[in-house]
Amino acid sequence: MSDAATLARPDPHAAPEAPPLRVMILGAAGRLGRLLSARLAREAQLGGRPVGALDLVDIERPLAPVDSNLEVTARPLDLTARDAVKALAALKPDVIFHLAAAVPSEADADFARGYRGNVIATWALLDALRHLRHAPVFVFGSTTAVFGPPLPDQVPDAQAPVPQSSYGTQKAMAELLIADHGRHGYIDPISLRLPIVAGCPSAPSAAVARFVSDMICEPLAGRTADVPVPLDTRLWIASPEAVVADLLHAAALPADIRGRHRVLATPGLAVTPAQIVAALREVAGTDVAERVRSAPDAEVTRIVASWPGAMSCSAARALRFPADRGLRALILAQIAAQES
Amino acid sequence: MSDAATLARPDPHAAPEAPPLRVMILGAAGRLGRLLSARLAREAQLGGRPVGALDLVDIERPLAPVDSNLEVTARPLDLTARDAVKALAALKPDVIFHLAAAVPSEADADFARGYRGNVIATWALLDALRHLRHAPVFVFGSTTAVFGPPLPDQVPDAQAPVPQSSYGTQKAMAELLIADHGRHGYIDPISLRLPIVAGCPSAPSAAVARFVSDMICEPLAGRTADVPVPLDTRLWIASPEAVVADLLHAAALPADIRGRHRVLATPGLAVTPAQIVAALREVAGTDVAERVRSAPDAEVTRIVASWPGAMSCSAARALRFPADRGLRALILAQIAAQES
Repeated sequence: MSDAATLARPDPHAAPEAPPLRVMILGAAGRLGRLLSARLAREAQLGGRPVGALDLVDIERPLAPVDSNLEVTARPLDLTARDAVKALAALKPDVIFHLAAAVPSEADADFARGYRGNVIATWALLDALRHLRHAPVFVFGSTTAVFGPPLPDQVPDAQAPVPQSSYGTQKAMAELLIADHGRHGYIDPISLRLPIVAGCPSAPSAAVARFVSDMICEPLAGRTADVPVPLDTRLWIASPEAVVADLLHAAALPADIRGRHRVLATPGLAVTPAQIVAALREVAGTDVAERVRSAPDAEVTRIVASWPGAMSCSAARALRFPADRGLRALILAQIAAQES
Repeated sequence: MSDAATLARPDPHAAPEAPPLRVMILGAAGRLGRLLSARLAREAQLGGRPVGALDLVDIERPLAPVDSNLEVTARPLDLTARDAVKALAALKPDVIFHLAAAVPSEADADFARGYRGNVIATWALLDALRHLRHAPVFVFGSTTAVFGPPLPDQVPDAQAPVPQSSYGTQKAMAELLIADHGRHGYIDPISLRLPIVAGCPSAPSAAVARFVSDMICEPLAGRTADVPVPLDTRLWIASPEAVVADLLHAAALPADIRGRHRVLATPGLAVTPAQIVAALREVAGTDVAERVRSAPDAEVTRIVASWPGAMSCSAARALRFPADRGLRALILAQIAAQES
């Protein structure tokens, strides 16, 4: 690990005169990316260190957050395009949040495209960063879909990934590649295995797990929502706000902690669709809850049932990663966010 | 899974008129490759089905086994060369043994070269096979170096790989990629996590674990051997003969069994250098045992200590994978092989 690399790393205990951070978000137009951009723009700090510039990147031009005193750039860029990532690396961001991905249904429907988006683009970026040797903090949005059956009720941190989809395979490969670049000191990475993101608005995507957000948001907005899995299916979920807090927490950890936890499952709530309906009834009334309808789909059920019902998250809990307080609180927060 | 794919797969219960198999060995000039080639040439069958052709491939021209009635071709080929693997896939082998690799020390000394040899070449081969859609049986030589500390005394099949080297990372990435190609029916693969191969002659390579073979072979040949690790270091080893028997066993399994075990640790012996010296003394006398010298090396010790001391191999044992009978038998077999 070179001195230059050490100096480039944000440190929550750094003196206030530390130079402001340049933060890059890949996948900035997605639900998590927008929320993360807005929060960084508003708070203008990360782990106690000032943020000076925010580079927002997405295949569609990401919305620049309003009311920001930061230098904010928004770049429409296809990360799989030739040399696209070299230009990004050349900006020498201190912190990179990598949330860009081909979603599960895309990745399994178009084999080559999934690998291009979820492995090869990330590899090209890592390669560009390796040659620059400024060793940015690198927070990667991974998934519990790296796991597959047979799984214990609570999946421990040391469980072997046995992905049941190309998407899960690609994320697991990226985790390995990222960790090895970290071991060599080319980047200072952490991959977060995120729960199903459940919150409003629903992600505008064909993601298999979108129904979990839909069954919260659509009834609240007066529309019906279909549940394609049995009502007692175990789901491991987190609000977008909690996931964004976890991404920021991961970036602000001391480098030696990240060095010991290159891959980590973040906290979530273990719930069933039936519990979500009951919580909706409690919080928003029977009329709202009755807008959720059962519409079983065998293929979606097969995929969702192959995911962990709950993670033990021992490391994340020991490192005080933020978590939702409960299902009721998660739903109330979504109502509040929609009304704000 | 297409009917064509099913027909192309060797089946131990197939009728004798089944067409003979075309078998390809990548890395055929290596220690395991030579032994596997010789055995297939001698037996001219695999799982009870006749072998008609043997394609031997290595970066150096592999030796064609003598005394064979098979059609044997030997191809010198750099698998990382552009389009090299397309020509191989076009031969439409029914069974591929993929034993070609950049060894651990190379993979960590030259970052890009290791990935080229251990991931990208394999990926290009898988890509070529995917387009041909004849779904060969694909036996991949992986390694227990995919694991890293903290590890239990006996590492279970469901342990998460946390590689401590680029070599281990690359093998773990290849396992994932291979399994996903299997899930889509493009190949019918199994990746075997092989123990340290301990036997004579020593592999002519810079492999970190070469010392284990050296401390058996060199004293038997009248030369001294240095042991770079503490004498109580736990080593998980197997003879080259046992490993080759495991490769053949894996290729001959029914397809549905491989489908349930895409990645599998093969049997080994849990031994220490001190136990190897004691067994040498017992089998070959004190003079031979005294040719083993302690010569600790901190870096080698660090790497070797990060590997599993023993694997539980539950799946492999249930599937009756062949195993060495014991350390004494392993050494006696090496003496016999050298004298034959």
